Amino acid sequence: MTTFRSLEWQGDALQLLDQRALPHRTEYLRCQDVETVAIAIRDMTVRGAPAIGVAAAFGMVLAAQVSEAETVEGLRADLAQAAAILKDARPTAVNLAWAVDRLQQAAQEAASSASELRDRLEELAQTMYAEDIAVNWAIGNHAQALIPDGATVIHHCNTGALATVDYGTALGIIRIAHEQGKRIFAYLDETRPRLQGASLSAYELTAYGVPFKLIVDGASGWLMRTRKVDCCLVGCDRVVANGDTANKIGTYNLALAAKAHGVPFYVACPTSTLDLSIASGEQIEIEERDGREITEIAGQAIAPAGTEVFNPAFDVTPAELITAIITEKGIVYPPFRENLAALMASAD
Amino acid sequence: MTTFRSLEWQGDALQLLDQRALPHRTEYLRCQDVETVAIAIRDMTVRGAPAIGVAAAFGMVLAAQVSEAETVEGLRADLAQAAAILKDARPTAVNLAWAVDRLQQAAQEAASSASELRDRLEELAQTMYAEDIAVNWAIGNHAQALIPDGATVIHHCNTGALATVDYGTALGIIRIAHEQGKRIFAYLDETRPRLQGASLSAYELTAYGVPFKLIVDGASGWLMRTRKVDCCLVGCDRVVANGDTANKIGTYNLALAAKAHGVPFYVACPTSTLDLSIASGEQIEIEERDGREITEIAGQAIAPAGTEVFNPAFDVTPAELITAIITEKGIVYPPFRENLAALMASAD
Repeated sequence: MTTFRSLEWQGDALQLLDQRALPHRTEYLRCQDVETVAIAIRDMTVRGAPAIGVAAAFGMVLAAQVSEAETVEGLRADLAQAAAILKDARPTAVNLAWAVDRLQQAAQEAASSASELRDRLEELAQTMYAEDIAVNWAIGNHAQALIPDGATVIHHCNTGALATVDYGTALGIIRIAHEQGKRIFAYLDETRPRLQGASLSAYELTAYGVPFKLIVDGASGWLMRTRKVDCCLVGCDRVVANGDTANKIGTYNLALAAKAHGVPFYVACPTSTLDLSIASGEQIEIEERDGREITEIAGQAIAPAGTEVFNPAFDVTPAELITAIITEKGIVYPPFRENLAALMASAD
Repeated sequence: MTTFRSLEWQGDALQLLDQRALPHRTEYLRCQDVETVAIAIRDMTVRGAPAIGVAAAFGMVLAAQVSEAETVEGLRADLAQAAAILKDARPTAVNLAWAVDRLQQAAQEAASSASELRDRLEELAQTMYAEDIAVNWAIGNHAQALIPDGATVIHHCNTGALATVDYGTALGIIRIAHEQGKRIFAYLDETRPRLQGASLSAYELTAYGVPFKLIVDGASGWLMRTRKVDCCLVGCDRVVANGDTANKIGTYNLALAAKAHGVPFYVACPTSTLDLSIASGEQIEIEERDGREITEIAGQAIAPAGTEVFNPAFDVTPAELITAIITEKGIVYPPFRENLAALMASAD
């Protein structure tokens, strides 16, 4: 257990650690309605695909609690509205839609009263919270087969306890290796524009005592060319049927550099991030965010006034650049179309 | 002629536009001795390989002017000291050593008096200043054969009038295309850690009226995958005999992404940047700079206290990723070892 929690349920409110203030200030946002949760997802107070999913689940619970509906039907109507608000907050991460759909489905099952339905949703969100910890723990443990003692890895963005309920995906692998007594060294991509590597992953690895160095995103190829790097570890926001993977912008350049140097490139994610309904990466909607994410840093302009930007929040790494996908159910190797489908079809 | 000048000789001082204050403030540093010039090179008040070369030439002139030596021999001794101070300021850009050596060589030729020698050096530095403009103009014009009307290009770092005396190398190609009436659109890598793309290249293209968008360095591959990009244009700090090219960190990742997408990758530089005395890129010394270039932006920490960094200022792009090298003497294609040697052997 870490000393910080990205999100915590308090019975009548969802408390979010404000990740925009890290690593400098530890501030919390208390959300008491679904609108506040949706805004927090959109403005990245909470971020990381799994954390967004669990936050959205509690957003649905809050919508149910706040709703004045006295009938099951009335409550379902309010929940449908809440679901739309939440899904609209960010388009690329599939966990958000996955979590909201899971609550929606539970709401459709027979219920004798609105109150029973409210309790059921709260219980489900709490289950999803606990599941996320267990799932990340399993990902981190499965992955150890790929991490030799003395490993040097490159990590992009933040995929740790801050991006999930605890442990995290790719960063959790590094943390668990360290906790198991392996010597592991991480190079952290700073991850422009929002600098999640510099602010969040560096914060986490400092807390865990894992040795690391920060690099600019453009240095990864040179690092692989001139120093021993055992693998790249990234999380993801959506993996589609053929293995194409949407993740934080910069992931694709890292994957191209890894391929050029023969460095294994591993994607870590819960199976809730798999979206086998989509055939290939070309069909993934990529969110474009406000240009000020690039032109301003810490409120200060770094470019001339009027500078326009191209600011996709994510890119898609094609499956052929991915060595393996690490899930809580095990490690999946190419061919991904067959093996991901088999993984999802297998019993839990 | 642009409205700004990276450096200007004033008879008894070298005035440098302080590029660390751009794009927000236009401030000048007046250098009256070689030590101030060396510090300005080291702290990147003046940067860009060609501009550094010309600044260093005037640094030698200032050393001669300040020297109290009354004999030719005494002056030569002071110049040798000045040369060492200047060459020590930054190790990777070859233009610095090239310029200093050129002044040193002139100082070794017969002179009847110290005063004659002082005048000779000032005249040579002024010649080098004028040559730089002519050379960049020639690079920009030769390159037009490679730039179609309607071209979209990606540019890394700053290689414009701010990096040279005027016009610049890679950015000069874009500017001259625009001045010739071609439609050209530039995507500018912001170029972490020092953000020369965001602060300097965006400043220049805004001044010239060339349409552009800023991107984070990690977005270049995704850009090439999803939009039409005709070529990448970069400058460089040193090209060695086999064509391996040292340039600003991030260049290598851009070149790998260009290769993966079949996008031509052009290096633009004066022949003074060629260092055929070195066989391959592995022998180029790569400067590592202060970690605060990464962990602090505009004086504000973006990473936790105590965060260590790996901060190479440059990387080396291997020749096989380079489509052509554009010099003032013409465009050089592979095989670079033969063709660069032939270029340098040819009459001016």
